[in-house]
Amino acid sequence: MKAVSDRVAQTWVDLPAESDFPIQNLPYGVFRPRRGGMAAASPRVGVAIGAHVLDLALLHQAGYFSDSPLAGDNVFARGELNAFLGLGRPAWTAARARLADLLSDSCLSLRDNAILRRAALYKQSDVEMLMPLRVGGFVDFYASREHATNVGIMFRGPDNALMPNWLHMPIAYNGRASSIVVSGVDVRRPMGQSKADDAAAPVFGPSRMLDFELELGVVIGGGSDLGRPIPISQAAEHIFGLVLLNDWSARDIQKWEYQPLGPFLGKSFATSISPWVVPLDALAPFRVTGPGQDPQPLPYLRCEEPWGLDVGLEVWLQTARMARPERISAVSFRGMYWNIAQMLAHLTSNGCNVCPGDVYGTGTVSGSSEDARGSMLELCWKGTRPLTLPGGETRTALQDGDTLTLRGACQGEGYRVGFGEVRATILPAAG
Amino acid sequence: MKAVSDRVAQTWVDLPAESDFPIQNLPYGVFRPRRGGMAAASPRVGVAIGAHVLDLALLHQAGYFSDSPLAGDNVFARGELNAFLGLGRPAWTAARARLADLLSDSCLSLRDNAILRRAALYKQSDVEMLMPLRVGGFVDFYASREHATNVGIMFRGPDNALMPNWLHMPIAYNGRASSIVVSGVDVRRPMGQSKADDAAAPVFGPSRMLDFELELGVVIGGGSDLGRPIPISQAAEHIFGLVLLNDWSARDIQKWEYQPLGPFLGKSFATSISPWVVPLDALAPFRVTGPGQDPQPLPYLRCEEPWGLDVGLEVWLQTARMARPERISAVSFRGMYWNIAQMLAHLTSNGCNVCPGDVYGTGTVSGSSEDARGSMLELCWKGTRPLTLPGGETRTALQDGDTLTLRGACQGEGYRVGFGEVRATILPAAG
Repeated sequence: MKAVSDRVAQTWVDLPAESDFPIQNLPYGVFRPRRGGMAAASPRVGVAIGAHVLDLALLHQAGYFSDSPLAGDNVFARGELNAFLGLGRPAWTAARARLADLLSDSCLSLRDNAILRRAALYKQSDVEMLMPLRVGGFVDFYASREHATNVGIMFRGPDNALMPNWLHMPIAYNGRASSIVVSGVDVRRPMGQSKADDAAAPVFGPSRMLDFELELGVVIGGGSDLGRPIPISQAAEHIFGLVLLNDWSARDIQKWEYQPLGPFLGKSFATSISPWVVPLDALAPFRVTGPGQDPQPLPYLRCEEPWGLDVGLEVWLQTARMARPERISAVSFRGMYWNIAQMLAHLTSNGCNVCPGDVYGTGTVSGSSEDARGSMLELCWKGTRPLTLPGGETRTALQDGDTLTLRGACQGEGYRVGFGEVRATILPAAG
Repeated sequence: MKAVSDRVAQTWVDLPAESDFPIQNLPYGVFRPRRGGMAAASPRVGVAIGAHVLDLALLHQAGYFSDSPLAGDNVFARGELNAFLGLGRPAWTAARARLADLLSDSCLSLRDNAILRRAALYKQSDVEMLMPLRVGGFVDFYASREHATNVGIMFRGPDNALMPNWLHMPIAYNGRASSIVVSGVDVRRPMGQSKADDAAAPVFGPSRMLDFELELGVVIGGGSDLGRPIPISQAAEHIFGLVLLNDWSARDIQKWEYQPLGPFLGKSFATSISPWVVPLDALAPFRVTGPGQDPQPLPYLRCEEPWGLDVGLEVWLQTARMARPERISAVSFRGMYWNIAQMLAHLTSNGCNVCPGDVYGTGTVSGSSEDARGSMLELCWKGTRPLTLPGGETRTALQDGDTLTLRGACQGEGYRVGFGEVRATILPAAG
């Protein structure tokens, strides 16, 4: 365990070494207790602290939020964060301040109330984490220059790798919200049309080129009105927090269908997110200036604040025959060309509205080195360089029984603000 | 007024000549009474009959649905159809049978109950029609061969007009659900990036190529589970009904942004739908066999039932200087290459789930003649053949103050099952 500086805020809750969830983080999620025989306990909002979850619905009932913008309806006694998010930044700030206080070493109120503490503090192993959001709108960006360049080289050659529009705007498309699932939900291999280059006609069958995409997902807190773009200077009023996001991709389906209207069934069979939404406020110490942008973006995409994020991201793969997962990629989010404020300003620049609980993905995060790539497509360079795994198995695409896990964390001095993980196992196609 | 055959079912409600809403139709919508001083009357579900709206929330309260699958919660006392749709086809059938009975000439129950009748039957001019659905997922297809061919010729020349995949599957993309609005809501011209072919860099400003797209929208009633495709033979269990849909398009924004991920901000600023959802059951007499398909579709896209729909569609334009609207296009939906059951089977073929209230657009409906085209892009052939309007104005794109109206109807013997209209006026850009 690392030595922890005296200056670092501490909690009275027991904190495992290298925990993703110190008091500096306080991410929100939705859970259902598995404790005892209460199988029917209703979903409610909780906050992660160390290896525990604090039940905010119960704290609200006990009056802990009665002097704040959260005083009215118990927005934590819901199966989704949307109502809480919809209250806006003053409520988010009040909740975070109250929780940081209640969980801090110096506060006795909850620590010394044994009955309430026992009722409100669950071990994470005693709860089931649920989908934290009702996602109305899902957009997926394409904001890593390295990723866009890699894909461009593979499909169009090195001379025209980036499309002419790429350096002028964060390219994106609308994804499917209904098939977003939480970590732990297994993903069924999709059926679909594909066509070999030398075949006369397409065939319908299980995808044979199943891939992951390593992304962050941005969760909208405060909505906007139709016809009213969100100026980039106001982005922080609307961004609540971030999750890990795996944008599962069936490359063979995608390749055959995507001209001219973009990806559709190659993506819409599933998208996985991590259960804990890390608040933007918890990421404040890790905001950095992103890479230089040349040409200079148009005025609506220019921002003065540092909107890059220094998050370390990892991809782990475990096949059915492996005893433990193997890390197959590690990359920093700080190299992303377009930042999350630019994405929001662009998404709404035409007047499109956003709603609490909407999510936008950043697009695959890839770095410049060969082991810092956020998709199998790039790691195996279109199948030409298979991954060799411990035990000798090789992969150019995901196989049934493979378990894919994304992890992410920001490293502070003596603490770590982590995202936990998003994990899923591939099930055989239903067909 | 046409002579009405004795065999045609009649209602005791006064029916204007050529009404879109005879007893054969009975479309559902959501309305708020404007009557008297009750400005705060809550939104509820109604059914259109002639020039009137019947308040189903009140009928439910009065016990008219107590012997049916609708007996429980008052699903009509809501601001959206979703709860009713989610009950599934048995409930839709029961509601339709009950309403057809109550409104028929031979039924005295409601007709002769003056107090209830006066409370439940509003003039359409006394109510405000609201957005009928909470749309979770919105997909837009591209199913007219004539439209795809026209666009292909304009952008790629006549030799490669259709993409290689087009004849093998109904091509589609995910659209933006949050910006779907109901008829009567004006549409603000979007701002966005565009780049002239001879310009070195893009500019940001109001779109100068604003267009409409004439479509039908299919409303999902019964949802499906993730990982479970809907077989084409089950499509009717999931399709509740149809609306008119205007897929507003900013061609200049779309042209610059759409490579390689498809349309995004060129579409997401607004999509308009008509307020009345015409049940699939009302369209049964107008189902026809669609055009032949060659090559034969893959098995999952083959259907035995006739899934074409004989709906006549029209586009009307009125500029700020015109005294009345002018019809600028008329086309039949029956010529659509891909039908709405094929669309649903394709959309879910990879396991993607659908939910009550989801909508998918058919894509622009164009026919083979020059005046049967469902977009300004095609009517004016990429700006080369301006429309000349009565009074001498010309158009190659929509201008501020223009009002665009879509209409649609099926012509029966002595009656007409109509969709009403979807109408909006273009407001100047906010920028």
